[in-house]
Amino acid sequence: MSEQNYTVNTPYGLTTPSIQALVAAGRAQQPALLKVGIFVSPGFMPMDINGAQSVFTIAGAEIHLIWKHKELVEGYIGWPTMPTMTFEECPDDLDVLVVGMVPPEVIEDPAVIGFFADKGRKAKYVIGTCYGSLMLGTAGLLEGKRATSNSNVVPMLPDVGATPVSGSEVVIDGNIYTSGPATGSFDASLRVLQALRGEELAALVELAIEYDPRPPFGTGSPELAGAEMTGIAQSMTAPLNQLYHAAAKRGYAGYQALQTGR
Amino acid sequence: MSEQNYTVNTPYGLTTPSIQALVAAGRAQQPALLKVGIFVSPGFMPMDINGAQSVFTIAGAEIHLIWKHKELVEGYIGWPTMPTMTFEECPDDLDVLVVGMVPPEVIEDPAVIGFFADKGRKAKYVIGTCYGSLMLGTAGLLEGKRATSNSNVVPMLPDVGATPVSGSEVVIDGNIYTSGPATGSFDASLRVLQALRGEELAALVELAIEYDPRPPFGTGSPELAGAEMTGIAQSMTAPLNQLYHAAAKRGYAGYQALQTGR
Repeated sequence: MSEQNYTVNTPYGLTTPSIQALVAAGRAQQPALLKVGIFVSPGFMPMDINGAQSVFTIAGAEIHLIWKHKELVEGYIGWPTMPTMTFEECPDDLDVLVVGMVPPEVIEDPAVIGFFADKGRKAKYVIGTCYGSLMLGTAGLLEGKRATSNSNVVPMLPDVGATPVSGSEVVIDGNIYTSGPATGSFDASLRVLQALRGEELAALVELAIEYDPRPPFGTGSPELAGAEMTGIAQSMTAPLNQLYHAAAKRGYAGYQALQTGR
Repeated sequence: MSEQNYTVNTPYGLTTPSIQALVAAGRAQQPALLKVGIFVSPGFMPMDINGAQSVFTIAGAEIHLIWKHKELVEGYIGWPTMPTMTFEECPDDLDVLVVGMVPPEVIEDPAVIGFFADKGRKAKYVIGTCYGSLMLGTAGLLEGKRATSNSNVVPMLPDVGATPVSGSEVVIDGNIYTSGPATGSFDASLRVLQALRGEELAALVELAIEYDPRPPFGTGSPELAGAEMTGIAQSMTAPLNQLYHAAAKRGYAGYQALQTGR
């Protein structure tokens, strides 16, 4: 037995021949490759985009991680991620544009708001999970739309012009799909895949990822967890949520000022 | 409104002050930081480790992405990831060692098998999700243990000395936690967090990530999907699974030869 030497270098980092063969075989079955743009930023939350990255990977899509620059950003926490596409490189004909939790600083960044206001209007479908709904909101994409997010953000949604919907179901309004965190990314992405390519493929992907969750404690929503535990959780994230609320209002005001000024 | 300038450079890439404050506040509530080592490799599957990375991040842990070298590896697909710890840097006192789907080439790599045979025996808890169970298997960690994986791998588990368990529940045998893919990583990680820090914290993390999944099609296991759809899925992954089966047998034989030779 000798040391293996099996790695293949790609622009996205090292992979292996077996994975390259898997990708090629999957793509050969697709009529045209879906173009999926996933927004990342300094301090982004991996779990909120992971469902989209996984579901559309299995569906043979092109996956692009989009940020201003191709510079290493830290997924919260400990997940150094290299973006693969800049704002300038992002095409107008994305099939899906995805955003999960990004820090409050990012949701009020005019350059990022400008990116979403532009590409979010042109993409065929848009997915916002968790705090990502606020990012869509500050870019004006939720105006007059029903939308959801995590339970702390739902009450903030009117401040970006949206009609808030609570609960753990994906909320669909036109081509905008919003959800809570974590598995919300799987749920919303499977729904968008259904809209793009039909239920047969989407259900097959749900099987391929063996999406048969078993939450151990049954405490995955304020309703399930009860008032006491919910109070503890809310007090722990209160400082963060104050930052988000203020940033959402400032960011959306900036967006509105730009619209008025046009 | 002017261009924001809010990024903070860290050894793990750019983040923001709000995320740094969130991490500091979370860690201040923990008695000692859990040390979590997550194995990554060329072509690793992000969704199979994302539950661990998320759950232990929320619990204030140190998160280390471990590979041979600090060189960019592609998460399958399109997710360039920079490992943050080498095999040599990995401490003996990991609280948790995690492995998800890694390519067949990796599960028979003697250097990787040696790493798991060493650190996997020393870690307090070990999590294997999806094809990651085979990685534990070729390193001898499943000998005489009950274990699970994805439905295609379960029948291969006896070939690495394990007693196979089918179904979507996390299988716990001693300090080894195995599960299926995707949400299996959340389920197993929440269970390990419960074992390490108690149910109160683990249930609070389940609430914090609002783990209240709504699989859209109810096809997330062979039993749920039925024979016809399962047959289609199995035929699509058959070439890959043949590679895994052969690699698992070769890798485990190599491990056994080393043990006999000692």
